[in-house]
Amino acid sequence: MVGAGQLARMTHQASISLGIELLALADSVDAPAVRAGCEYMLGSPDSLDDLRRLAEDCDVVTFDHEQVPPAHLEALEAEGFRLAPGRAAKLMAQDKLHARRTLHGLGYPVPDFAHATTTADIDAFSERFGLPIVAKAPRGGYDGRGIWTIANTDEAGQLLASVRGGLLLEPRLAITSELAVLVARTPQGERVTYPVAETIQSDAMCREILAPAEVLPEIAAEATRIATSIADDIEAVGVLAVEFFCTSGGLLVNELALRPHNSGHYTIEGCTTSQFEQHLRAVLGMPLGLPSLLAPAVATANVVGQDGTGNPASRLGRALAVPGAHVHLYGKATRIGRKLGHVTVCGHDPGPVRKAARLAASELEADYR
Amino acid sequence: MVGAGQLARMTHQASISLGIELLALADSVDAPAVRAGCEYMLGSPDSLDDLRRLAEDCDVVTFDHEQVPPAHLEALEAEGFRLAPGRAAKLMAQDKLHARRTLHGLGYPVPDFAHATTTADIDAFSERFGLPIVAKAPRGGYDGRGIWTIANTDEAGQLLASVRGGLLLEPRLAITSELAVLVARTPQGERVTYPVAETIQSDAMCREILAPAEVLPEIAAEATRIATSIADDIEAVGVLAVEFFCTSGGLLVNELALRPHNSGHYTIEGCTTSQFEQHLRAVLGMPLGLPSLLAPAVATANVVGQDGTGNPASRLGRALAVPGAHVHLYGKATRIGRKLGHVTVCGHDPGPVRKAARLAASELEADYR
Repeated sequence: MVGAGQLARMTHQASISLGIELLALADSVDAPAVRAGCEYMLGSPDSLDDLRRLAEDCDVVTFDHEQVPPAHLEALEAEGFRLAPGRAAKLMAQDKLHARRTLHGLGYPVPDFAHATTTADIDAFSERFGLPIVAKAPRGGYDGRGIWTIANTDEAGQLLASVRGGLLLEPRLAITSELAVLVARTPQGERVTYPVAETIQSDAMCREILAPAEVLPEIAAEATRIATSIADDIEAVGVLAVEFFCTSGGLLVNELALRPHNSGHYTIEGCTTSQFEQHLRAVLGMPLGLPSLLAPAVATANVVGQDGTGNPASRLGRALAVPGAHVHLYGKATRIGRKLGHVTVCGHDPGPVRKAARLAASELEADYR
Repeated sequence: MVGAGQLARMTHQASISLGIELLALADSVDAPAVRAGCEYMLGSPDSLDDLRRLAEDCDVVTFDHEQVPPAHLEALEAEGFRLAPGRAAKLMAQDKLHARRTLHGLGYPVPDFAHATTTADIDAFSERFGLPIVAKAPRGGYDGRGIWTIANTDEAGQLLASVRGGLLLEPRLAITSELAVLVARTPQGERVTYPVAETIQSDAMCREILAPAEVLPEIAAEATRIATSIADDIEAVGVLAVEFFCTSGGLLVNELALRPHNSGHYTIEGCTTSQFEQHLRAVLGMPLGLPSLLAPAVATANVVGQDGTGNPASRLGRALAVPGAHVHLYGKATRIGRKLGHVTVCGHDPGPVRKAARLAASELEADYR
């Protein structure tokens, strides 16, 4: 696994049950997966040599993030190493502009968009769709980084100059909710699709996940159909997360992740097979597990750093006092806006379940209350 | 944690979620917990120096087995180290004769028994209860080791000479079923009791666990009451497993384990809180989790080595093809009669659930079929 963050950490936990040997390419001995005892090799995802060293020790190479230069993946595939997902599928998560164009070309509903390399492009887009405009760096962004709102086209020149490869422009959409669907797919094309989950954002970061999503059955069915079909079309291997905007005009595909995903943490306790075990089974071409929900309502709340000090582990007891709270801490140093862990609660009704997850997460976030 | 076997391995998995730092005293770098990345210190549970080195690095010392000399535990407590469970409670799992006498003295129902140090003692017991007699080494036995059937008192002298400290004698009982109840208890006396499980033995080794046990409600209630009361009486800390014989005359307490226990593996997927997370929470004095069952029927089948070769991991795909099979492999070398892993299945009816768990376990056991 390239990367040793919390996704690798939780994949490591799943690998222990199956007796699968997971080796992580870690940039630090303090990485969450390394701190959990995952075997590791120190190296950078930006170094082809490091990636090759990892690949030489593994049957198959997979990823805990999207930050590997596509050219390196192309080189590894040319050298005969097995990547899961492959380079072409992975690019759909690495390059938002490429993904948008490809999905549009395949006929999937996506937001209106344009590629801007000049201020004239931005002016033209604003004339057509009005202001403000949402601008995204095609590569490298996550958790709200690499996304800007252009309220005034005078600002646009400076922004364009600061981002390589131009900007992906979108109108600011009126979104009623955001959905996410996980699909796991093997190299042989076997696949399973998880229930539709609702993601609740704040400051462009996902703060809560609720499964099943509280949407009309036909919307859930459509999201399921689209996500499953995309997995086949792009020949995804492993877990694919498809994120949707729900608008008054229907569903729009926002972005893809080709790896276990924050929106799927609810599957650890909420589904028969967790996304982490499923990812391992899928990339190894093993039979997939059932994705069925284990409770009528499952909620996950992220634990996000509120300041630069303190350690959520020191507040563990307060979170565990919340009945039914499943606490996951990632062993990361606290930093403002950093995902430090998550809490999942399963139950009968979405309201109390969300409340309990949020309460336990806030106990872990707060130093003083 | 003293010991680094599969119980420490699964406790390590649980410790990752909670961000708790688990350190195992391991006798080998090949131990299951070490292979799963648990931090470890090499040493022997028979060495007071090694135990002291471990204790010096930990807030609290707990156990994955019963094989620590009681005198060492007494020494550690005298030196001020915190043991969970404490020495006195732990002795109830380490010395079957002591446990039997203590439980009898407290008024709990136990099998008829005697302590035999001479052949005359054995003759007297056989005159009273008939032959065959079951003889147990008071200390050190597990998985059928340390248990003998005396069919003829002529054999008895040789057996007596081979076991230190005499023998615990019991009549051979007509057992209708065997039950196990887990209780988790904190140092402050907070406790939770898990559902009553049925254990199915073969060759004196537990092969299957079914929860809830298929017994009359009043028997389940009585087992729950007894197990909970024993936890309080002996001031257990952490997980206590109470094993019962179900006879036509009622329940009899067979033995105790003061640690996570094979009969509780079903709790990983079958209950809101697994016994491993619960053990960590209990020994650290944190709020305990809900012990509630997540499905009407949960079955676990042990994967037991059938020969000296082969590796169950090589047959993983076949086991994962069984719908709903949760596979746990311990990373141990295959040996006849050795527990190499287990499989849990949750569902609606005990019959199909047991069948599925057994099928997946047998796929992992068999090299040739």
